[in-house]
Amino acid sequence: NPWASLTVAETVAITEWLNVPERALNLTPGDRGSLALSDNFVFHIGAFRPAKKDVLAYLEDPTPQSLPERHARVTVHHGAAAEPVVRDYLVGPLPVGEETKMRELTEIYHHDHIPFNARGITSWGELLPILDVVGMSDLAEVTQDLFGGVALGLQNDTLVAGAVGPLSFDGSFRRTWINWRRNVPGMYLHPVGFFMYVDMSGTDPSQWKLLKIVYNHQVFSSVDEFLAVYHNGTLRRLPARPDNIDYGWTTRTRPDVPPRDLDYLPGPRSVSFAGLRFRVDFKTQYVSWMGWGMYFGFDRDMGLSLWDVRFRGERLIYELAPQEAIAQYAGNDPMQSTTAWLDRYFGMGGNVRDMLPGYDCPHEAVFLPATTHSFLGSITRQRAICVFEHDTARPLTRHMGFQHGEFGAVKGYVLVVRSISTVGNYDYLVSVSLFKSQWIADDQQFDYIFHLDGTIEVRLSASGYLQGGFWEPSQEGYGTAIHDTTMGSLHDHVINYKVDLDVAGSANSLLFTSTAQEEVEQPWFEDDWGNTAIQQKITRTYIENEDDAMLRFPTNFQGGYALVNREEKNIWGVPRGYAIHAGYSPVHNTVVGSKRLLNNANWARYNLAVSKRKETEPTSSSMWNQNLPGAPMVDFHKFFDGENITQEDLVAWINVGTHHLPQAEDAPNTRTNTAASSFFLTPLNYFDSDIAMESTNAILLSPP
Amino acid sequence: NPWASLTVAETVAITEWLNVPERALNLTPGDRGSLALSDNFVFHIGAFRPAKKDVLAYLEDPTPQSLPERHARVTVHHGAAAEPVVRDYLVGPLPVGEETKMRELTEIYHHDHIPFNARGITSWGELLPILDVVGMSDLAEVTQDLFGGVALGLQNDTLVAGAVGPLSFDGSFRRTWINWRRNVPGMYLHPVGFFMYVDMSGTDPSQWKLLKIVYNHQVFSSVDEFLAVYHNGTLRRLPARPDNIDYGWTTRTRPDVPPRDLDYLPGPRSVSFAGLRFRVDFKTQYVSWMGWGMYFGFDRDMGLSLWDVRFRGERLIYELAPQEAIAQYAGNDPMQSTTAWLDRYFGMGGNVRDMLPGYDCPHEAVFLPATTHSFLGSITRQRAICVFEHDTARPLTRHMGFQHGEFGAVKGYVLVVRSISTVGNYDYLVSVSLFKSQWIADDQQFDYIFHLDGTIEVRLSASGYLQGGFWEPSQEGYGTAIHDTTMGSLHDHVINYKVDLDVAGSANSLLFTSTAQEEVEQPWFEDDWGNTAIQQKITRTYIENEDDAMLRFPTNFQGGYALVNREEKNIWGVPRGYAIHAGYSPVHNTVVGSKRLLNNANWARYNLAVSKRKETEPTSSSMWNQNLPGAPMVDFHKFFDGENITQEDLVAWINVGTHHLPQAEDAPNTRTNTAASSFFLTPLNYFDSDIAMESTNAILLSPP
Ligand SMILES: [Ca+2]
Ligand SMILES: [Ca+2]
Ligand SMILES: [Ca+2]
Ligand SMILES: [Ca+2]
Ligand SMILES: [Cu+2]
Ligand SMILES: [Cu+2]
Repeated sequence: NPWASLTVAETVAITEWLNVPERALNLTPGDRGSLALSDNFVFHIGAFRPAKKDVLAYLEDPTPQSLPERHARVTVHHGAAAEPVVRDYLVGPLPVGEETKMRELTEIYHHDHIPFNARGITSWGELLPILDVVGMSDLAEVTQDLFGGVALGLQNDTLVAGAVGPLSFDGSFRRTWINWRRNVPGMYLHPVGFFMYVDMSGTDPSQWKLLKIVYNHQVFSSVDEFLAVYHNGTLRRLPARPDNIDYGWTTRTRPDVPPRDLDYLPGPRSVSFAGLRFRVDFKTQYVSWMGWGMYFGFDRDMGLSLWDVRFRGERLIYELAPQEAIAQYAGNDPMQSTTAWLDRYFGMGGNVRDMLPGYDCPHEAVFLPATTHSFLGSITRQRAICVFEHDTARPLTRHMGFQHGEFGAVKGYVLVVRSISTVGNYDYLVSVSLFKSQWIADDQQFDYIFHLDGTIEVRLSASGYLQGGFWEPSQEGYGTAIHDTTMGSLHDHVINYKVDLDVAGSANSLLFTSTAQEEVEQPWFEDDWGNTAIQQKITRTYIENEDDAMLRFPTNFQGGYALVNREEKNIWGVPRGYAIHAGYSPVHNTVVGSKRLLNNANWARYNLAVSKRKETEPTSSSMWNQNLPGAPMVDFHKFFDGENITQEDLVAWINVGTHHLPQAEDAPNTRTNTAASSFFLTPLNYFDSDIAMESTNAILLSPP
Repeated sequence: NPWASLTVAETVAITEWLNVPERALNLTPGDRGSLALSDNFVFHIGAFRPAKKDVLAYLEDPTPQSLPERHARVTVHHGAAAEPVVRDYLVGPLPVGEETKMRELTEIYHHDHIPFNARGITSWGELLPILDVVGMSDLAEVTQDLFGGVALGLQNDTLVAGAVGPLSFDGSFRRTWINWRRNVPGMYLHPVGFFMYVDMSGTDPSQWKLLKIVYNHQVFSSVDEFLAVYHNGTLRRLPARPDNIDYGWTTRTRPDVPPRDLDYLPGPRSVSFAGLRFRVDFKTQYVSWMGWGMYFGFDRDMGLSLWDVRFRGERLIYELAPQEAIAQYAGNDPMQSTTAWLDRYFGMGGNVRDMLPGYDCPHEAVFLPATTHSFLGSITRQRAICVFEHDTARPLTRHMGFQHGEFGAVKGYVLVVRSISTVGNYDYLVSVSLFKSQWIADDQQFDYIFHLDGTIEVRLSASGYLQGGFWEPSQEGYGTAIHDTTMGSLHDHVINYKVDLDVAGSANSLLFTSTAQEEVEQPWFEDDWGNTAIQQKITRTYIENEDDAMLRFPTNFQGGYALVNREEKNIWGVPRGYAIHAGYSPVHNTVVGSKRLLNNANWARYNLAVSKRKETEPTSSSMWNQNLPGAPMVDFHKFFDGENITQEDLVAWINVGTHHLPQAEDAPNTRTNTAASSFFLTPLNYFDSDIAMESTNAILLSPP
């Protein structure tokens, strides 16, 4: 598996190699809690995927000699530098030895330096100084009066802080809006309506400061100013909060109602009585089923990725990998109106948790592990990925005919590959409660569903807690009241996938098919129907330039997009292709031009985009994009620089997403049935006919 | 079950009652083959559903006395009348007795009379005279030369006819384009490119005539003219047909390739080890599962319908029933360019076939029967409907939290109710081969999927044979070559459902929610981000007039539609509602204004429409709409006559559909995974929180 993650041993060796004096990195060990911002330390170590041409050569002739060199990507926080900065390094070849070198990795970014103010979140220790900055101890009497809670930095604090991003625009500052919530399970849904804007720029916490306090639309520039207004009686108070007794509604506790009829029985369970029909090679993380085969990759930023996906022996996809997940909020308070999350920042892979057998995946599922490496060391989750065969309970094809040969069905079996990421900085869990709060609490379920006919459905669904707001009438239009004083806030989710389709080879073109109405005249038309007829007609064109390849689905889905190899035709003379077919909720981002998402997620403006593949454009985002809307490390629009995309190696960047207008039924957690979005990759004259007929489950019956 | 179908005994009694001289109907018995067009006979007998107010009174107080009177709808072909006509009669009350009366049923139609030329297809005997009209015997030598086949009206004919609709515009004529195909399994995909336009108006076959012959874009007004051109050598021939040897590609035969890896094993199978968790009352056709309950209805026109759908004891839907399914074609030949099917004409219910256990529905499914009554007598299918519980293999909700109470999942069980209709006039099967051809061969699978949270997914998928065309270069733009000289022709499917939602009672309003971008100024904005912010905002408005309630989904799905009861609020003060949420392929018809679909399927122009419920508007179509595009018996647009729809009993008419641009993989049969469309009916602040948490499968775990 040329895309395998680093092993723990490799990581240890790299760490030791980085620590020797010759490297001159002056690194501080990353033990929990001991790091200061002004230290140099290794933030992250991960595999750097080899060049495609090297891998293809290896796959052609897989010998140990032809295996591409392995490299690591190492992210170092240079907090001790005169001008603190974050740098990415390429370290290799691996294993560590005489040949191993390191150099700065810049060719995949659009800026040379990663601003220190855009850096990833490390230990809780980094945030501790904010306690002093915001003066919650001085405010304890007031917060007890206004909100019935206090935050003193103790385990039994009744208020805890949350914070929102982006933390910076272009790296010139690091600031956040802190919002206070009750310290109860499901805290996300217990905001009290109290906000503080703090500056955390630079490496010296003594320079950090409170910039603003906001309460009930009143803005104060300091704790003193707020206290003065509070004490002189001119503070306009929020309406009394009636729901401060029972917090059970935000837990996953079963309500105390009688069970539904027959609910005491176990539900149906899927059993492969003769054994599983898919193969898993744990060593190489290779899975195969019914003609499909693929390798798994896994990384800190986005978790599971699929590589060299083949069907019936032929490569279809070189790489299929999520790239970024944004959630952009709206509201009438300093928190919701300033939030634009990019989940890669938190590490969708680094935050993978063990899935629940029987709930997250069927009992029969096979689980695979994943390991990631951060400043805290290595974390391995044994149930990071699951694979199972599923009977969709629907025929894939069927017909009840009238003649022999017309009568039969193909059972709709699929193979599902799943990974669920819960973003939220769980490393904070061990710390005291001030920042126990995860930043966000979205469970994003990544499904790859393989069908017998060559179709892949890529499906994302979300559950977890809303980022709740304090409900009051001025929030009308930005969400819905879901409790006395809690609202679900309006937001959009958009998730980008890289799909490096290689359709019948890597020389592909982008086919745009559309339909429109026409009026035609025909010699055979009769007087009784008039001389003309109105009907639809297909137009097929090739989009030849990247600049024209940032795409939205046509109105009423009248047409669509496909990658085809114009030189390779099926037996009927039609170029072989794979279509990108819209599934559930084929949406793009609603908002364009917000400063908080200015240029760091421009892929989200489209349903999909197609660019010429480049080794220097391995991904549409970076973890630092979160905090650099004005100067992103990866600027997606720069991929689209007028290159010709006719019979080139192309990459489709495809989005899924949901417009989340929250509702009462989002509590305690969002339901995955409607919070789902998907797309299909499906053969388009790729074959000569439906090859699912090969299935031995393709029964053929005689007419009854 | 107030919506129960008629029993066979009831039908027999009605038939006898209709046959007595006092009725003066002069009926000819409907035995197979014996009917002449100039006879009077009973075409169809079915239950006429009682008025909603009567049923609601009964459901309030279900005693035998309060059971609404039963009536039958009886369709009579008055072929023997001086002015032949079709009439619908209301016969009742049932059982037949002293009180039973009949009267013409006109209040549900927009025209008083059903034109005889728009009538349904009865026996093959009706079509037999066309054999003589089209002169295929005289052409035998020529068809053998041009197409390698003949049609002499014998069992071993090598060519068979197909025909397309509509057969009329306004009832003033009955004409069709006949197209010739090879008489092999999957004949739909073996057109030879030979077309005849015939007039079948009136009841006297001796008046029927051949109007035109079309071959390779050449039009001839008679057999003689065609023969003359053929013999004088000026006929422009179609290119030689290379694929006239092997017809196996259009059968469901497994290709002769090695099985895929492990395909010899049986796939996973769903087993309820402790027994099924849903209840079926076969006598009343009532099904319940996990708080859901519903009655089944079944009729000739559209098959399965659901009635009094309740969740947790509260009525949610009074009626959920498919109304019509159109398929409108395009092409450069007389067949495809003139086809617009309305499947109700053929009887989606009357044509239901027995489903295949294990393929069409899981082994554990419970099957229910359905009976329909036509001029041929009663047909009962034992496996017309199936019901099963299915594990979606996905959690409905889940969260991996950090505190006690945040950690758990709800298993995604659903109940599926399914019926599959194969439209095609199978009654012809017993006849000789000329019109053995079914008209169309679409398998439409109707799924109703009930979720634990109150969501219903209504899903339609299609399989079966394409209506193939003869492939030649002038067909470019109207489809795709799927074999040497066979093409799949471009067409749209749109299917309409009646959804009589009663959301928290029957007084409902239509809520339109939309989102748009705004730029706002806030006192708390910082200089570092500017003084304004761009974000989205929700606008909620009520659509108050039917004329404004013919709707399309907003661009980028920024917003949607819901029925709400403005007077009934959830505990948080939000009106209780149910949203109509787009699922797969949320499309409407592409073509507007075609004469062949002028006014008989206007519902297909929209994604959905909402009207005030009327007893006189029980359905959006009729079986005769197929042949009356210019003067439909049910004109959907007439429902929308400016009435106010604020807090009224409303009906949502909701479409699913697919744009079918055929491809090689449509052979032998279309695949249901991408030929699928759906919508969700999902609670929208209907509850106070997610009630799926009631499930005893809602496990709660401690943080690990
Ligand atoms: Ca480029
Ligand atoms: Ca490619
Ligand atoms: Ca009306
Ligand atoms: Ca209603
Ligand atoms: Cu959301
Ligand atoms: Cu179709």
